[in-house]
Amino acid sequence: LATHLGLALFRQGLTVLQVYNRTPGKGRKLAARINALYTDNLSDLVPGADLYILAVSDSWLGQLVSRLHLKDSLVVHTSGSVELEILSPVSSRTGVFYPVQTFSKHRKINFRDIPICLEAESPESEMKLTKLAERLTRSVYLLDSGKRGLIHLGAVFASNFTNYLYSIAELLLRENDLPLNILEPLILQTARNVRRGNLFENQTGPAVRGDIQVLEKHRRLLADHPDYHEIYELISKHIILNRSLNGKL
Amino acid sequence: LATHLGLALFRQGLTVLQVYNRTPGKGRKLAARINALYTDNLSDLVPGADLYILAVSDSWLGQLVSRLHLKDSLVVHTSGSVELEILSPVSSRTGVFYPVQTFSKHRKINFRDIPICLEAESPESEMKLTKLAERLTRSVYLLDSGKRGLIHLGAVFASNFTNYLYSIAELLLRENDLPLNILEPLILQTARNVRRGNLFENQTGPAVRGDIQVLEKHRRLLADHPDYHEIYELISKHIILNRSLNGKL
Repeated sequence: LATHLGLALFRQGLTVLQVYNRTPGKGRKLAARINALYTDNLSDLVPGADLYILAVSDSWLGQLVSRLHLKDSLVVHTSGSVELEILSPVSSRTGVFYPVQTFSKHRKINFRDIPICLEAESPESEMKLTKLAERLTRSVYLLDSGKRGLIHLGAVFASNFTNYLYSIAELLLRENDLPLNILEPLILQTARNVRRGNLFENQTGPAVRGDIQVLEKHRRLLADHPDYHEIYELISKHIILNRSLNGKL
Repeated sequence: LATHLGLALFRQGLTVLQVYNRTPGKGRKLAARINALYTDNLSDLVPGADLYILAVSDSWLGQLVSRLHLKDSLVVHTSGSVELEILSPVSSRTGVFYPVQTFSKHRKINFRDIPICLEAESPESEMKLTKLAERLTRSVYLLDSGKRGLIHLGAVFASNFTNYLYSIAELLLRENDLPLNILEPLILQTARNVRRGNLFENQTGPAVRGDIQVLEKHRRLLADHPDYHEIYELISKHIILNRSLNGKL
């Protein structure tokens, strides 16, 4: 995230003064790309910047806040699941700047379409962060830590868990010398259909049809994979259960 | 599927002689759009056509085959999970024509990108179906019933179950007056990443990071949804388990 955010700010003509990273190899590389200073030493941070962005993992964030003292400078973290209050020891002016997207180093990301969830300790900080976010993206949401946490939980179901289901499909196919790309158009269309909403009402597949024969066949195919079988049973059970709640029985 | 397939064949300049549907409303509408005859009576089927396509649900297919006798005409079904042999009572020349995609009536589908899995009782029938499929799509796969069944099982994980996870996210957000479209770019990017393969190695989220604090927070958020909680626990458990198998601990 730090890399993508740094590049996006730089491309918008904003000045990134300094990059801090514990690992010089990574930090220097980003700093060079965006004409910024680099340091691996927290006590060398340039003081008095307009904004400090802590784009680090949740666990490292917990350690960082006890070692950073930035007085009255605006400081934000970028985590979906961590409360605003964690930053209280760092500064009197705090915020959250959470882009709802999955980032990987070697893939370009266009920030224009990425929702950014903001929170701040005061209307002034909120205004400042809103202006910044609006330079990067079309969709800015002002949300408190509770609502942001729900977005993050939704993201775990809709992205992390989904990727795990894709992994299962990949492995089942690979074991049988079948390429995963047979499923790609289906996977993309299923994701595109999210736009329509009412997703449970549009559920398809053997479980929602109550197709016992196919369910039985799949159980047999999964006999050698007790872990996948367990997931298959549980999700099918819930789909069937929901179907009856929705009055489809 | 029948509608989309009928339209795609028609657009390719192929003649669809006749549409059979138990429900006249649906059948007549499709027939009119593709200049075909319509019947709701199996005994009125035009004899001697080059191909009969049984694009019906698995359960209805089981009933249909006992009532259809088409001698030596080529007959195919379009199901991912049903074996070729189910068609043996219908004709001596049989095949499967399975497009790996999710179809809904009110959405246009471009067949060019849809993989079609073929199977046939003889090389002659296989050749005939291959020629037809290649008029509709760029990706044609010749697969026996066993491999096709695995593709279908993979599709259940990667599409049906995925849609169910999207539904959970939708409900969690809706309950809190949050729109699902905050998650859309993330969902689409996660789906696009399938192209990279090695999906488990690219797994993200609290479970694969072993982030106990976030897992605990999510459990609390799911306290009122025992069913979603159960799914959360199980998938997280398997992600953590796989992580250690992959030597990430």
